[in-house]
Amino acid sequence: MPSAPTIKLSNGKEMPLVGFGLWKVDNATCAETVYNAIKTGYRLFDGACDYGNEKEVGQGIKKAMDDGLVKREELFIVSKLWNTFHDKERVKPICKKQLEDYGIDYFDLYVIHFPIALKYVDPSVRYPPSWQNEKGDAIEISKTPLSVTYAAMEELYEEGLIKAIGISNYNTALLLDLQRYAKTMPQCLQIEHHPYLVQQDLLNLCKELKLTITAYSSFGPASFLELEMEKAKNVPLLFDQQDIQAIAKKHNKSAGQVLLRWATQRNIAVIPKSNNPDRLAQNLDVCSFDLEQSEIEKISSLDKGLRFNNPLNYGLPPSVGIFG
Amino acid sequence: MPSAPTIKLSNGKEMPLVGFGLWKVDNATCAETVYNAIKTGYRLFDGACDYGNEKEVGQGIKKAMDDGLVKREELFIVSKLWNTFHDKERVKPICKKQLEDYGIDYFDLYVIHFPIALKYVDPSVRYPPSWQNEKGDAIEISKTPLSVTYAAMEELYEEGLIKAIGISNYNTALLLDLQRYAKTMPQCLQIEHHPYLVQQDLLNLCKELKLTITAYSSFGPASFLELEMEKAKNVPLLFDQQDIQAIAKKHNKSAGQVLLRWATQRNIAVIPKSNNPDRLAQNLDVCSFDLEQSEIEKISSLDKGLRFNNPLNYGLPPSVGIFG
Repeated sequence: MPSAPTIKLSNGKEMPLVGFGLWKVDNATCAETVYNAIKTGYRLFDGACDYGNEKEVGQGIKKAMDDGLVKREELFIVSKLWNTFHDKERVKPICKKQLEDYGIDYFDLYVIHFPIALKYVDPSVRYPPSWQNEKGDAIEISKTPLSVTYAAMEELYEEGLIKAIGISNYNTALLLDLQRYAKTMPQCLQIEHHPYLVQQDLLNLCKELKLTITAYSSFGPASFLELEMEKAKNVPLLFDQQDIQAIAKKHNKSAGQVLLRWATQRNIAVIPKSNNPDRLAQNLDVCSFDLEQSEIEKISSLDKGLRFNNPLNYGLPPSVGIFG
Repeated sequence: MPSAPTIKLSNGKEMPLVGFGLWKVDNATCAETVYNAIKTGYRLFDGACDYGNEKEVGQGIKKAMDDGLVKREELFIVSKLWNTFHDKERVKPICKKQLEDYGIDYFDLYVIHFPIALKYVDPSVRYPPSWQNEKGDAIEISKTPLSVTYAAMEELYEEGLIKAIGISNYNTALLLDLQRYAKTMPQCLQIEHHPYLVQQDLLNLCKELKLTITAYSSFGPASFLELEMEKAKNVPLLFDQQDIQAIAKKHNKSAGQVLLRWATQRNIAVIPKSNNPDRLAQNLDVCSFDLEQSEIEKISSLDKGLRFNNPLNYGLPPSVGIFG
């Protein structure tokens, strides 16, 4: 059975270099999908409150553990703090609720999903809360600065509820400010990263600050087509891009495997998702070949600074536009 | 005598829409340049500790006031807090020193120059301090978060030492975090802005948050050629760009005037600099004609996301790389 190599985080914890991303995994099939992924060899699961499927993920994990496929300590379970829970007093209760949904007592990594504090929405009113206020009629910000939310994350870490601190969708400027106020630096940054959005300056900074990067949307526009995003329709799919196809052909691998290897070979973790069992195995087996340096550079040169997962691309207002 | 119209800041103060930028104005000619600019009709002067010419600017201003050309209350004097003075206890003393250098008792606008806190360098050791530590052998960060520096700026504002608070080189994410921790929102954001770097999302956010924008480097690459910056050599000068030339010809204005009008017509203040007396007057007279909406859009469509004034472009390390 294939399994992914791991990468050592700055606090010594080992994190699988390839994991399974749970965004847009249907509730109806989620438990089974997770169970099958574990069977295929996946050990890292990248979830989030906002994905709305944490209970089902937990069910899949529980079944796999009950069946003796895997032990808790062999898994690396990631979840994320949603925007509406940034207020100091909301962080711990929601983390505990999320742990309960999974049926576990710690996260291996817990991540600030976006650097955007929104007004609290009580889980009894709407869960997951998405972007709107309790009434569901507007986006309302919370006045909690990121430093306050981050300090609450550090408390979770000190208490052992989370074994590593992550941030997501932070840029270099936010990361440098965080460096000033953090007692414990985060171990991981999760960002959109693919050949159309390379972000080399941010990668360089993370190297200097010893943050491990996890790439999401490694296949670029593909994930956003089903959301009918115009920006995604207007560029060639990375799977169809001629340089990537030529490199894939040469190595006798799929274009998807080349895209994942382009990341992992540079020590960037990936979290692809697939419902197809063959592709599930292919994605995990991504470290069984190496790209040449020139191929890596060729792929990196496709950079267009093209970001898909920008709140503004979903029609959200400037008040949550963090990428300009 | 021409003079620039003003724009009302969110606190009610009027700021000239066209000012004189003091970056790279030689010490030897600075006092005279400022004097002549006042004579030409300039009322806003945009200085900074880092420009190393504040005493000379003050001399030029003093002479103009002594000669009865202008009164203090008719001027709008802008200066900036340098990176090495971000620590809480350093903000007020350095602001006072800068005021003393100018020979005035308040700034109309005082701006956080970069969102980068560096270790304190005593003015008796090196002034202006530039980027290096006291020894001059490395760049050392200070652990002061932006929220702490900003609170110290608010104190200057409350004391009346500064009549408006500015920030510079902030992106949307930093600005949204500042919105969470600010007691008083800044009135002004100063950014690099020209047709190769339009930053529409940031402009939209500033409109929503009622921040007036001042554009620097309105002529794009031109300012950076003399610094031998590769990035500036590799694109056509905006003065030579064919659409801009065609628009200039149609209005019987210079390309520079078109570039400034493109900004001011969208309520973005500008701070050009020139040593040439004719051009000095031309730049100030920039509001005497209007571009058509289609011309504004044509110019905006030249956007390349091309930033010149990035610390990394000067060979500085990732630890001050705020634009990725």
